[in-house]
Amino acid sequence: MGRLSFVTTARSAGARCGLMQTRRGPVQTPVFMPVGTQASVKGLTPEEVAGLGAELVLANTYHLMLRPGCQVVAGLGGLHCFMGWQGPILTDSGGYQVFSLSGLRRLDEEGVSFRSHLDGELMRLTPEAVVAAQEELDSDLMMVLDECPPAGAARGYLEQALARDARWAARALAARSEKGGALLGIVQGGVYYDLRARSVESVCALDMDGFALGGLSVGEAKEEMMEVIARTAPLLPADKPVYLMGVGEPADLVRCVGLGVDMFDCVLPTRMARNGTLLTARGRLNLRNARYKDDPQPVEEACGCYTCRGYSRAYLRHLFMARELLSYRLNTIHNLYYVLQLMAGLRRAIVQDAYESFARGFFSCLEEGRGEEALPN
Amino acid sequence: MGRLSFVTTARSAGARCGLMQTRRGPVQTPVFMPVGTQASVKGLTPEEVAGLGAELVLANTYHLMLRPGCQVVAGLGGLHCFMGWQGPILTDSGGYQVFSLSGLRRLDEEGVSFRSHLDGELMRLTPEAVVAAQEELDSDLMMVLDECPPAGAARGYLEQALARDARWAARALAARSEKGGALLGIVQGGVYYDLRARSVESVCALDMDGFALGGLSVGEAKEEMMEVIARTAPLLPADKPVYLMGVGEPADLVRCVGLGVDMFDCVLPTRMARNGTLLTARGRLNLRNARYKDDPQPVEEACGCYTCRGYSRAYLRHLFMARELLSYRLNTIHNLYYVLQLMAGLRRAIVQDAYESFARGFFSCLEEGRGEEALPN
Repeated sequence: MGRLSFVTTARSAGARCGLMQTRRGPVQTPVFMPVGTQASVKGLTPEEVAGLGAELVLANTYHLMLRPGCQVVAGLGGLHCFMGWQGPILTDSGGYQVFSLSGLRRLDEEGVSFRSHLDGELMRLTPEAVVAAQEELDSDLMMVLDECPPAGAARGYLEQALARDARWAARALAARSEKGGALLGIVQGGVYYDLRARSVESVCALDMDGFALGGLSVGEAKEEMMEVIARTAPLLPADKPVYLMGVGEPADLVRCVGLGVDMFDCVLPTRMARNGTLLTARGRLNLRNARYKDDPQPVEEACGCYTCRGYSRAYLRHLFMARELLSYRLNTIHNLYYVLQLMAGLRRAIVQDAYESFARGFFSCLEEGRGEEALPN
Repeated sequence: MGRLSFVTTARSAGARCGLMQTRRGPVQTPVFMPVGTQASVKGLTPEEVAGLGAELVLANTYHLMLRPGCQVVAGLGGLHCFMGWQGPILTDSGGYQVFSLSGLRRLDEEGVSFRSHLDGELMRLTPEAVVAAQEELDSDLMMVLDECPPAGAARGYLEQALARDARWAARALAARSEKGGALLGIVQGGVYYDLRARSVESVCALDMDGFALGGLSVGEAKEEMMEVIARTAPLLPADKPVYLMGVGEPADLVRCVGLGVDMFDCVLPTRMARNGTLLTARGRLNLRNARYKDDPQPVEEACGCYTCRGYSRAYLRHLFMARELLSYRLNTIHNLYYVLQLMAGLRRAIVQDAYESFARGFFSCLEEGRGEEALPN
């Protein structure tokens, strides 16, 4: 078996279902990847993550490189063994974190130097080193190193970055060893459609196993992002998965699936959970709201998650206000379940060629719930 | 069925096994109660706590009174329903926290006034209010309000406190309603054996369902504490359980079981877990120690807990150093499992009339492990 295969199994409007075969088993798309930044989906065991319906998780190479170190993970049998996750893992390149988290970075043709946000140590990423690090982690889906320009970067700057990204992608591909996992290229180009098209062209010229849309959800307007996706996704080869990096707001998931995106990751559901905000079909529920103090209802009556089956809003609010560890865990279980069920619902709808009515139902339910936080149920 | 019954089922040296029947099912003694201060054993679900072997948990009335409020819990069906714990619950009186946590307290014959450590609100506890609060929680084993004098309190002061404690205990008993849970009296008297004996006499004059040894492990020398227990426990009626409050160091559990104690609670195993310290038969293992960075072994090879069956010391150290939520949870699972297994081992040994050889084995293993932290395994 190869590193990655992808077949489209159903289509509905602009959306598609697919079956992605990885080295560690199949993944049904469209898929949402819970984020396990530091080799842990915050607060949950791998069994819980799998039990919520996740088939693929993401880990961050940058964080693991800094702590405990990719070589340490390799010495312990790789990331799957280290963290106890049996399914496939996608790792990012670390580039995004270098550009968002680390201090004092300097970019040159060879790579990027930066200081660790943990201890200030001087570090260096090159396209080759990033592939080697991901191979040490034994990643199933690796990402190439690219530059992540901020939203609003000048066109001329983006053009230069694109050209270097193409050279870096070729170097990454050449650096991958026989035993390395699948490698995904990244389409950049900001909000310039012609630059996106140019980036697609150069990335597709390489034998990548899939393609990511990068540099979105970084501060540009929501409709601008949607338009870039709508215009760029169709340019990509239909026989490879399309991954939209860093997007996970439920409404965005529904819309972007309709634009042909197959893969998503985002910290939003898990981070919001830790901030006491729960995702529901009718919108967000904020546990800080005093109206939940003696509310015996579950977060969502119709939800089948462990949290909703066993606990009241009143208890969840209490745990959150008391900063109890169980709070973060129960909230995370609900939010991940919500998002993973949403993806499962989208897949079922696509199979039944009912994407559009599913999306209409989703948005009308959300609309109904607006402002509900201010009112009694 | 009554509120609480207790029968001794086996004896070995000074230790005994018992079966305690509560309103919510049987409890085998000697028993360790995990602490769920704010209606949650930190980081764990009730199913996990039960799965670790816990039959009885403790919750803190003081904390729940302040947040979310005992009436709120009552309105939601009581503490069991609120937190999802099906088994029996022991609640303390809140007195200890008033004397250790809260500000500006003033004691009089009627009760104690204090300011909430959360928001400074002026609150008042009386023997009657404390029973009412515990009944609102629907506690199965309630504690009477008493004063908790600091270690080293003068003898004259302790004598006055004892006399008031006796009056308060009688008022608590009178205040209990028909539907109220079992009520346990508390023996005080510091390290003065004659005062302890006097306290036993006055507490035993009341129709209490059990007896606690209070005011120990509050700063006095370890051997002083052991001597007080050794001299006081035999004075208590043999047909009621003896509860040593706030003791949970493994070596202390083994010794105090040998002195006839039936019940224990302590935050030590769970708090240590959150501080990265793991309890083992050979002593404590501190995950901060760099020697564990690439150690593929489980915390304890022979341990059957979820953490030891699935994760390496290296991963646990990584999670702890990275302040991952899963760290506190996996460590807590191990430490609670360790203590609950220790209690199960003690019960088995007593049934086989082998308490003394069990205790010898325990201490020799601990002795062997001394200083191990500084050496490779």
